[in-house]
Amino acid sequence: MASEFTIRRHVEFSDTDLAGIVHFSNFYKYMEQAEHAFFRSLGLDILNQQEDGSIISWPRVSAKCSFEAPAKYNNEIEIRMIVSRKGVKSLTFNFEFWHDGSRLARGSMKTVCCHFRHGEELKSIVIPDEYNDLIEEHPQA
Amino acid sequence: MASEFTIRRHVEFSDTDLAGIVHFSNFYKYMEQAEHAFFRSLGLDILNQQEDGSIISWPRVSAKCSFEAPAKYNNEIEIRMIVSRKGVKSLTFNFEFWHDGSRLARGSMKTVCCHFRHGEELKSIVIPDEYNDLIEEHPQA
Amino acid sequence: MASEFTIRRHVEFSDTDLAGIVHFSNFYKYMEQAEHAFFRSLGLDILNQQEDGSIISWPRVSAKCSFEAPAKYNNEIEIRMIVSRKGVKSLTFNFEFWHDGSRLARGSMKTVCCHFRHGEELKSIVIPDEYNDLIEEHPQA
Amino acid sequence: MASEFTIRRHVEFSDTDLAGIVHFSNFYKYMEQAEHAFFRSLGLDILNQQEDGSIISWPRVSAKCSFEAPAKYNNEIEIRMIVSRKGVKSLTFNFEFWHDGSRLARGSMKTVCCHFRHGEELKSIVIPDEYNDLIEEHPQA
Repeated sequence: MASEFTIRRHVEFSDTDLAGIVHFSNFYKYMEQAEHAFFRSLGLDILNQQEDGSIISWPRVSAKCSFEAPAKYNNEIEIRMIVSRKGVKSLTFNFEFWHDGSRLARGSMKTVCCHFRHGEELKSIVIPDEYNDLIEEHPQA
Repeated sequence: MASEFTIRRHVEFSDTDLAGIVHFSNFYKYMEQAEHAFFRSLGLDILNQQEDGSIISWPRVSAKCSFEAPAKYNNEIEIRMIVSRKGVKSLTFNFEFWHDGSRLARGSMKTVCCHFRHGEELKSIVIPDEYNDLIEEHPQA
Repeated sequence: MASEFTIRRHVEFSDTDLAGIVHFSNFYKYMEQAEHAFFRSLGLDILNQQEDGSIISWPRVSAKCSFEAPAKYNNEIEIRMIVSRKGVKSLTFNFEFWHDGSRLARGSMKTVCCHFRHGEELKSIVIPDEYNDLIEEHPQA
Repeated sequence: MASEFTIRRHVEFSDTDLAGIVHFSNFYKYMEQAEHAFFRSLGLDILNQQEDGSIISWPRVSAKCSFEAPAKYNNEIEIRMIVSRKGVKSLTFNFEFWHDGSRLARGSMKTVCCHFRHGEELKSIVIPDEYNDLIEEHPQA
């Protein structure tokens, strides 16, 4: 059972804006990259095509981030993620962004497990065993 | 004195992801586009080069968004923004995203007025008169 | 029959990079925005769901751009597009980007009309009448 | 002296569009990521602040790409780059994008070495020794 994960990545030139720092919208992309790498590390897919052609996925319910220090081009940033809450149908992750011993930002993102077919509405479902058996709430959460 | 603003925009193809809907990180870009259009409508710049070469700008302190319904390619969405709080040094905006009579999302963003020179640290400052005289807190906030 | 189109748009803050100018990858997004606005102006969809659930679309074969002058935040840029070639299955568009009387860039993009079903390969097809009847090669092309 | 470089990266969810594949504008970002990683591997900066506060950088002259097969979410793609031409003031790179034994795309990008100060115009310059001594034209170019 896993409840935390960390990725490192370079800040790309195209992630910056004319203020010379990472555009704030990219922190939400970084959160997603950590979340997806976490799933991948467990052999799980964030978007899971079923045998009948339907899909299980994890759309976002909400996401927030507070910014404490700027991230700059070429910085190698560390994104630390924990499972802060596992609900019946949802997962919430907390994130911290670090560079060179300083915390740059803190965020969180809530996702809900959904089932749908192309052209139909999303329907939230109880987290399937394949995810539920591998992901647990972090003890410090 | 202005305390609210609304913009409309088409969802671009490049704003969508493989789930067929607007990638959630773009809602934060949309908030910024509304904020900047609001400033522009008042003849104000979000990034203001002073005569001495220094700059006054409005970096983000925090931003959040909750997602209620998906936005799709070519949707004309309406982004309604109010000044939900005017502090001594900061502004907070609330946002609602609408399409075709349905609310898609709600968000908020807090910014702080800062002064800096190239290569130096940002320093928060009391909101200068040129902004303070034109922007006010919304009565319903 | 239409063979040219022009759109205007503000450069968004999030389109810039730390060099203080529009990141070059965004010129390709701007080309696409002009192309899609052209289709929309003719009542056409760039992605056309058929009654049998299959889709007609226009994926890119190639795109290029040469950069002559930088585009900056808040610049209102004009994107002028012509149909430079109409083939049996493909369309090629030429683009010019202008701001304030100066040309910023020139580009071109070739697209091919394709038919596909979800999960299947794309297959190029002869341009359907609904497109062919409305779009023509520009006389100066 | 180096004349080629290869990087690998996963396709991120946010790189895709509603057609279920990587949005074509991202191939230009991928080229840049390979170029910057190449510079980084040589201990060089793409943006080089001089002691007098001026900057040496490498803006784009032109970029093009042709698309042969789609790249999909989670694909690990390989970006192979060679220095296809070293001019007096410019560098041209050719790129190939591969996944799982198939070529997805081919591109090229021409950059020119420039010197500037904040608020001034860019001026092209002869490639400085620190770059010239480490980068050479590929023998097969």
